[in-house]
Amino acid sequence: MVRPRKAIECLQKYRPPLEGRGGKLRLDFNENTVGCAPQVIRALRRRLSAEGMTRYPEYDESRKVLADYFGVAKEEILLTNGTDDAIKMICDAFVDPGDVLLQPSPTFPVYKFFHEVAGGKVSRIPYDENFRLPVDKLLAALKKRTRWLALANPNNPTGTAIAKNDLKIILRSAPSTLVLVDEAYFDFSRETVLPWIRKYSNLVVTRTFSKAFGLAALRMGCMFANPELAELLHRGQNPFGVNSLALAAACEAIRHEAYVRRYADEVRKNRTELCRLLEAMRIPFVPSSANFVLTRVGEHAPEIAKRLRTEGILVRDWSYDPHLRGYLRITIGSNAQTRRLVGELRRMRYLLDARDGAGAWKNFVIYSSTGWFA
Amino acid sequence: MVRPRKAIECLQKYRPPLEGRGGKLRLDFNENTVGCAPQVIRALRRRLSAEGMTRYPEYDESRKVLADYFGVAKEEILLTNGTDDAIKMICDAFVDPGDVLLQPSPTFPVYKFFHEVAGGKVSRIPYDENFRLPVDKLLAALKKRTRWLALANPNNPTGTAIAKNDLKIILRSAPSTLVLVDEAYFDFSRETVLPWIRKYSNLVVTRTFSKAFGLAALRMGCMFANPELAELLHRGQNPFGVNSLALAAACEAIRHEAYVRRYADEVRKNRTELCRLLEAMRIPFVPSSANFVLTRVGEHAPEIAKRLRTEGILVRDWSYDPHLRGYLRITIGSNAQTRRLVGELRRMRYLLDARDGAGAWKNFVIYSSTGWFA
Repeated sequence: MVRPRKAIECLQKYRPPLEGRGGKLRLDFNENTVGCAPQVIRALRRRLSAEGMTRYPEYDESRKVLADYFGVAKEEILLTNGTDDAIKMICDAFVDPGDVLLQPSPTFPVYKFFHEVAGGKVSRIPYDENFRLPVDKLLAALKKRTRWLALANPNNPTGTAIAKNDLKIILRSAPSTLVLVDEAYFDFSRETVLPWIRKYSNLVVTRTFSKAFGLAALRMGCMFANPELAELLHRGQNPFGVNSLALAAACEAIRHEAYVRRYADEVRKNRTELCRLLEAMRIPFVPSSANFVLTRVGEHAPEIAKRLRTEGILVRDWSYDPHLRGYLRITIGSNAQTRRLVGELRRMRYLLDARDGAGAWKNFVIYSSTGWFA
Repeated sequence: MVRPRKAIECLQKYRPPLEGRGGKLRLDFNENTVGCAPQVIRALRRRLSAEGMTRYPEYDESRKVLADYFGVAKEEILLTNGTDDAIKMICDAFVDPGDVLLQPSPTFPVYKFFHEVAGGKVSRIPYDENFRLPVDKLLAALKKRTRWLALANPNNPTGTAIAKNDLKIILRSAPSTLVLVDEAYFDFSRETVLPWIRKYSNLVVTRTFSKAFGLAALRMGCMFANPELAELLHRGQNPFGVNSLALAAACEAIRHEAYVRRYADEVRKNRTELCRLLEAMRIPFVPSSANFVLTRVGEHAPEIAKRLRTEGILVRDWSYDPHLRGYLRITIGSNAQTRRLVGELRRMRYLLDARDGAGAWKNFVIYSSTGWFA
């Protein structure tokens, strides 16, 4: 038998529950719940040909088109097979065994996953009980030798945003630490530090076409950094990691930005609506800048998620994380989809109250006076 | 500035010349030169929908369908983002800095590339002057601690096949060395050791949809190993590395195997034809089991490749490899494509003879008595 690397032997699995989702209302992975721009589908149809499929992807032209869209130079952008690939590239280029990744907790699990594949160690800065990022603690931890720092902005699964000024302080305080600002949910928050790649040689920004743009099936992301850093990240990259249809779709999608803006606007409106309804139901939630809301429904969380699934609605139960027991993360979709979700949540609450006694659900809800509600 | 890993700092770039190939006769990357099965395009068209593109890929069903096609269990197959991804996964799971990859030379450059990204060292066993694999030398080298051995069968760029009996001896002689048998060109050779994954716990086999199946644009490959080894390889894999349309295309393509068989049969016939013509022109070549032929045109190789490009025909000049100066690798396509290539080669020969004196080209051709010609 062939023995694997030690890091692989010890690796904690990361396999998100992504099977059998067809035909359900998918409020579990923060995808676009409606559809990509119809023009993208038409462009892909035009692109499909028996001869065209035989050709290895070419990147130069798409790279230029996407660089223009994002307002960067060609040397400042890398095309990636989703954001996962970008994270992997950071680890391939910078992480040796024993190196430290610093990250807030909870956050997107993939930073830790690929960092541990590389044999690195993870140092966590927990969010406070109101899901505010303890910037002071983070800065104190940064002073020790940290290889890289992963900041999702807005963060997943909390939906919270990091103030630009905090980001500035962080970037300045550790010039030899690579700082990833993962802007997967940028289209919902409209806050970005992308232009800062010219100011900070340690900054890497990622964007994805899997969320607002509605192209998760195709795997397409972009990574940005100053040219020297981008070149280092590029060196070890799989030369054909991004497929031709992902390139074609992304290049068409950016031509219909208005479609994505309208979708993001609708999501933001529905987010406010959902939060209003959660508040009325006295279900606490974390104020969100993204297309999802983290809510605390209490110890019934797994049961509620299961019952919602029976009704054809998927939400993400975070109870597997000891710090997020009782929490559901709910993706915001269209108005009709949000209403359908709220209707089911209401109905379930009545059912649970009837079964366990009125207030049973409420018992697991703890209110905070410090801005729990939006 | 953030400093990269040492392996990245020292890394030799691998950037194959894959830009601006549209509209040309592509005999440079061993793709299918005609087209994938038309049913695949129809299936992709049916699959395209604005809502469908928003969903992250699901793998369970495709994995089962492809396992059935290849005659293995679901636990014995991994879906990969092309063969490159499979090679990367081997390195991620098994290669620590300083570990040794053993490989014949010349061979497919990507084994070395990802191995060096992981910080490994490469040990080469050169083919003899007649491009026969020196199995004894390889076995002798294997006795030292080799982490993995990469064998492309048929080999690229030589097109040569490894005898099954040699493979058996190799697999048995180093049970703790992972042995990759990369069968990217299986559809042209029809020789496989895939069923041996049940006999040898150190064997990994890869296949791709980028060559005979004509789906290089989509990035789809498969990796096979016994369940324990497959599980180790899977652990660190990008959870969404393979896109949904690649899955859909592969699952449809295998339903039209007859199409691929017909294409491979035609390629084999044209290969014989090309070799006959090369022989008549007294241009040496290596007998090939794949869809390409390595020919020695002598020191004019770069000029010939350049002139062919001007005529709209791309071939691969291997002169950048010091052991393959004067060698062109030519992909075999349809009958008409092969005839077009030969016509141009003939014309160029006359041109070069007229310019440099008759026989100038011939001077760089050295014949061997040991099976240089098919």
